[in-house]
Amino acid sequence: MNQLMHRKDFIKSALAAFSVPPLFGGTAHAQATPTQTSEEKSTPTHDMSQFPENWTRPDQIIMILYPGFTALDLIGPQYFFGSLMGATVHLAAKTLDPVRSDTGVSLLPTIKFQDCPKTCDVIFVPGACQGMLDAIEDNETMDFIRSRGETARFVTSVCTGSIILGAAGLLDGYKATSHWVTRPLLHHFGAKEINERVVIDRNRITAAGVSAGLDLGLHLTLQLRDEFYAHTMQLLAEYAPAPPFQYGTPDRFKPEELKMIQGMFSGFVKKTEALGRKHTRK
Amino acid sequence: MNQLMHRKDFIKSALAAFSVPPLFGGTAHAQATPTQTSEEKSTPTHDMSQFPENWTRPDQIIMILYPGFTALDLIGPQYFFGSLMGATVHLAAKTLDPVRSDTGVSLLPTIKFQDCPKTCDVIFVPGACQGMLDAIEDNETMDFIRSRGETARFVTSVCTGSIILGAAGLLDGYKATSHWVTRPLLHHFGAKEINERVVIDRNRITAAGVSAGLDLGLHLTLQLRDEFYAHTMQLLAEYAPAPPFQYGTPDRFKPEELKMIQGMFSGFVKKTEALGRKHTRK
Repeated sequence: MNQLMHRKDFIKSALAAFSVPPLFGGTAHAQATPTQTSEEKSTPTHDMSQFPENWTRPDQIIMILYPGFTALDLIGPQYFFGSLMGATVHLAAKTLDPVRSDTGVSLLPTIKFQDCPKTCDVIFVPGACQGMLDAIEDNETMDFIRSRGETARFVTSVCTGSIILGAAGLLDGYKATSHWVTRPLLHHFGAKEINERVVIDRNRITAAGVSAGLDLGLHLTLQLRDEFYAHTMQLLAEYAPAPPFQYGTPDRFKPEELKMIQGMFSGFVKKTEALGRKHTRK
Repeated sequence: MNQLMHRKDFIKSALAAFSVPPLFGGTAHAQATPTQTSEEKSTPTHDMSQFPENWTRPDQIIMILYPGFTALDLIGPQYFFGSLMGATVHLAAKTLDPVRSDTGVSLLPTIKFQDCPKTCDVIFVPGACQGMLDAIEDNETMDFIRSRGETARFVTSVCTGSIILGAAGLLDGYKATSHWVTRPLLHHFGAKEINERVVIDRNRITAAGVSAGLDLGLHLTLQLRDEFYAHTMQLLAEYAPAPPFQYGTPDRFKPEELKMIQGMFSGFVKKTEALGRKHTRK
C-alpha cells in the first residue's frame, strides 16, 4: 500500500522532472571523468527526495578486482549495481593500477582495499581460472575479502568466486553454487554444493558460471530496492535472453565431447582440489 | 565429415596436451600485463597446429570504445571474442586514455583508431544513452567506424550501437534491431526495424538491448568458428539463463508503468530523432 502510493507519486514527478533517465545505466554520471575520486563519481545529479526512500538507499557495494578475473562475471552484476540510485559501487583492488581480465580487458580500480569503507552492504567476488588460484594464495586479497565479508549485509559471488569466498572461510556451513567445473569442489571449502543458477542461503548469494552474474544482479536489485525497481532494470537491460542454441549445461553434450571439455580443466581442477585440502586442514 | 575427423583428432590430442584451457576465457594469456602491446597480448601460448584450421583463424576484431558506452553491451560479446583462439581483439578508441562507461567502469583501450588494421573481420559498436548521441556528433569516431565498416567481414552492434552504425551510413537498406527504446527510430537512420533479439541481414548483425550482447557473441562465434566451438563456449559461459522474473520486454508491464518508464527516455528519444532527421537530409 505504502509502496503503491510511492510509485504513484513517483510516476507523477518522474514524467515532469526527468530529462535524463536515472535508471538507465547510470547515465546521470556520464559526464564524470576517470580522474574524479570515488566520492565524486557517486554524487547523484538528481534531486533524490523525489523518489521513494527505499529506491535511494546509500548502499556501499564493494566489487573485488584481481589479476585474471573474468570481466563478464563482474560486469553482469555491475550493470545492475551501477544503476542503483544512491548507491556507491567501489571497484576495489590492491593498488590503483589497471587490472587485466582473463580475456584481455583492463579495468581501472576506483579504490584501494585499504581505503574501502570498513563495512559494506554488498561484497562481490568474480571468478577466474588461474587468477582465482593466485587470488587465494594472496594474503592481502583474502584478508580484505574476509574482513568485509564477515560484516557485509550480503556476501556474493559469480562463477569460481565462490571458491574464493569458501577459501576465505565465508561459506562454512552455507549452501552455495559455482561454475559447473568447480561446483563439485565446493565441499572442500566448507560449503554445501547446490546445482542451481543462483543459491541464496541467509545472506550468502552465489551464482553459477560467468553469465549467471546477470541473474545474480537481478536477485540483488530485488533485495536492495523492490520488485518494480528490479523489473524495470530487467527491461532496461532488455534481459529476455534468446541464445541461438541450448548448450549452456553439461548434460547437453555427448559423453565423449564432455570428457574432452572437462579434460581441458583437469590441471585446474587438481590445483583447486589441492588448495581445498589445505583449507580443510586449517 | 572433414569436420568430424578434425574433432576426433582434436579430442585425442587435447586430452594429452592441455594443461590450461585455451577456450576458457583466454586463460592462456593470463600472464600478460597491461603494459604489453596489442600484438604481444594476442600471442598464443599454445601450439596452434594441433587444432582444426578453422578454429585458429587470425581474425582481426575491432571493438569501439567511446565515453559513456554501456560496459555490459561490450563485455558480453568480448567474453566470446576473447576466447577465439588465434583472433586479436582490439579495444579501439580515439586515444589510449581510459574510457569511462555509463555505469562508472573505466576500460583501457588497447589501440588508437589511427593504429588499427585497415581491414578487419569484425567491427563491433556498443550502445549508450547520451554517450551514443555524443559519439554520432564526433567526426573522428564516425569516420573510423564508417571506414572499417565499409570493408569488414561483419558489421555488428548491441543496443543503441545500431543507431551509430545507421548514422555512419552502414545500415542503409538493411534490416536491423536496437534497444526497444530506439528500435522505432531505426528508420530515421536508413535501416528497416525488426523486432528480434539478433537480426542478421547479409553481413550486418545487430542485437537488441544490453544483455543481447551474449546472444550476439554466440551467433558470431558460430560464424567465425563452427557449431562445436560455439556450443562449447556457451557451456564455458554457463549460458543457461534463469532470470528470477520475466520483465525483459515492454509488453510485460502495465500501460501506466510503461508510460512512466518511457517518460524517462522522452528527452533522449527527441534528441535521437533530431539526429535522425539530420541524417535523412544528407
